[in-house]
Amino acid sequence: MPRAFAVVMAGGSGTRFWPLSRAARPKQLLALAGGDESLLAATVRRACAVVAREDVLVVTSERLADAVRAELDLPAENVLAEPEGRNTAPCIGWAATRVARSDPDAVCVVLPSDHHIGDEPGYTAALTRAIEAAAAGDIVTVGIRPTRPETGYGYIEIGETIADGVHATRRFVEKPNRQRAEQLLSGGQVLWNSGMFFFQAQRMLDAIDAHLPGLGVTLHRYRDATLEAEAALVRETYASLPSVSIDHGVMEKVDDVAVVPADFGWSDLGSFASAYELAEHDADGNVLAGGVAHDARGCYVRAPEGKLVALIGVRDLVVIDTPDALLVMPRERAQDVKAVVEALRETDPDRL
Amino acid sequence: MPRAFAVVMAGGSGTRFWPLSRAARPKQLLALAGGDESLLAATVRRACAVVAREDVLVVTSERLADAVRAELDLPAENVLAEPEGRNTAPCIGWAATRVARSDPDAVCVVLPSDHHIGDEPGYTAALTRAIEAAAAGDIVTVGIRPTRPETGYGYIEIGETIADGVHATRRFVEKPNRQRAEQLLSGGQVLWNSGMFFFQAQRMLDAIDAHLPGLGVTLHRYRDATLEAEAALVRETYASLPSVSIDHGVMEKVDDVAVVPADFGWSDLGSFASAYELAEHDADGNVLAGGVAHDARGCYVRAPEGKLVALIGVRDLVVIDTPDALLVMPRERAQDVKAVVEALRETDPDRL
Repeated sequence: MPRAFAVVMAGGSGTRFWPLSRAARPKQLLALAGGDESLLAATVRRACAVVAREDVLVVTSERLADAVRAELDLPAENVLAEPEGRNTAPCIGWAATRVARSDPDAVCVVLPSDHHIGDEPGYTAALTRAIEAAAAGDIVTVGIRPTRPETGYGYIEIGETIADGVHATRRFVEKPNRQRAEQLLSGGQVLWNSGMFFFQAQRMLDAIDAHLPGLGVTLHRYRDATLEAEAALVRETYASLPSVSIDHGVMEKVDDVAVVPADFGWSDLGSFASAYELAEHDADGNVLAGGVAHDARGCYVRAPEGKLVALIGVRDLVVIDTPDALLVMPRERAQDVKAVVEALRETDPDRL
Repeated sequence: MPRAFAVVMAGGSGTRFWPLSRAARPKQLLALAGGDESLLAATVRRACAVVAREDVLVVTSERLADAVRAELDLPAENVLAEPEGRNTAPCIGWAATRVARSDPDAVCVVLPSDHHIGDEPGYTAALTRAIEAAAAGDIVTVGIRPTRPETGYGYIEIGETIADGVHATRRFVEKPNRQRAEQLLSGGQVLWNSGMFFFQAQRMLDAIDAHLPGLGVTLHRYRDATLEAEAALVRETYASLPSVSIDHGVMEKVDDVAVVPADFGWSDLGSFASAYELAEHDADGNVLAGGVAHDARGCYVRAPEGKLVALIGVRDLVVIDTPDALLVMPRERAQDVKAVVEALRETDPDRL
């Protein structure tokens, strides 16, 4: 297999998981899919099926860098700390300079750190196929076969087969409304955009030079610096980089993006409602984590070790208890946590 | 006004207020009606409008005696500690021997410790009237004018007027079912039994001798003992006393019980639903105690100081948070807390 590096993106804040996720301990550092393993640790573990552990890079914020290093058994310099978030293009570009310094032809495997994967052998197989396609010179993404007209994901329209299990892409479609999502699904030739990307380091740096030349100039300086000089350079220049996503800034502009269609029990774990769906339920459809239920159904409870949560006569409720904040809402309102967090940013920022 | 002693009954466990009320800190020690004053402290404060503070006796369990003494500014010996609960007749009888030792003709004002009183001047007036009637030799109770066919209270049928604002009683009716409660109300000559009783100490001890002679024999020994000897005697004999209520054991058997009808915003604070009713609501009908609500209505929240409770999209919910236990239920299920507490008695008794 071609040499590959994982580039794990772990800078997100995950406000829809407040009060479990906090500014200092966001979603990717939590074990939201059950068990004890954080989403980030699971991402790195799965990546190690296709890359060597010392070839895993994690990009996160300065604020989270220590927590990320503590969470993962990686060389300290493999955790890239962004002075501030500038969306995904600078983050991926910076990581690509690191890989290119070792081996310009090595494949970068860009992975979000907050997804859940149900079928890990299927995932490894899809990654392997995508790495091989990328080693042939394409920029590659993995697309998930859609199971419903989801409005929370972007879509990819696929074109002709270009290799076994690899298709050309026709275009990227941003998160659609419900009607548009149904149209896309009935067309049949669409996949969900998983946010995973595969490319040779030099290939991406060339694409950035072509389509985001301002970013490209700075990335050349990063690449030419020593590791020590790089840190100071990043701190000095990062705020001036364009805040742009890799999708908008690069993917939509290059015409040879390939896609590997796959189906490995993928979920982006977007809210407590999806955490509930993924967890194991008792006979009443509750996820109680040691609580007691008296005529309660469909509830999702999280509480600190040793705390007893008693539910009486409630249905489809989310109850998230932490030492200093408690959230209670119907499961179907799980998206509204964001609004509460925004309000707290004004009134009680220490609670975030 | 005749000399009077208050006899405050504070031995209850208040399981319907779990997890706020605990075995070591039950309902009467909590500020359930809002503010910082416990129900017991409020009862004693109100009693002091009609009796001297040193003439307030509080009967509680041995387990709670220290907490009760800490709560109240009373002489230590005024807190009578029962080795075990034997219902109200032994408790009231014991307190009556204490009063009789000082003054056999003094009036005992027996008060539950877990009620809420909305109109304190009206309450003082009713107590004054009842004390005066008791000083004339009657056993007297206060009856509350009913406002609804409540099935949670006992009723008193009233007879002819025997003095200004004082009626004879025809009979005591135990907690009725709904249909019976409606019949009682449509008859018009009924009051709710408030559980407050007024009598000269000797009058009650004579009634106990007549109707509960087994209890009477032991009470004579208490009365003849010194305060020091009494403690040992109580510990030795209390478990053998008949467990019987003053209503069944005495009230229903003496034929000259009088009743003072009154209306002073009385509530027995039987559950979180009544605590909600008594508390001050915000514009959305919530009682949040510092929490935040996003499209929530009719909710009652209690949480430790410094804890933030966020509600999203819920209606008529009770959320009671404590350091080691959390309860969530609809307000209309407030009576079911008892069932959860009974189940915990088996599985997690330290949580009670």
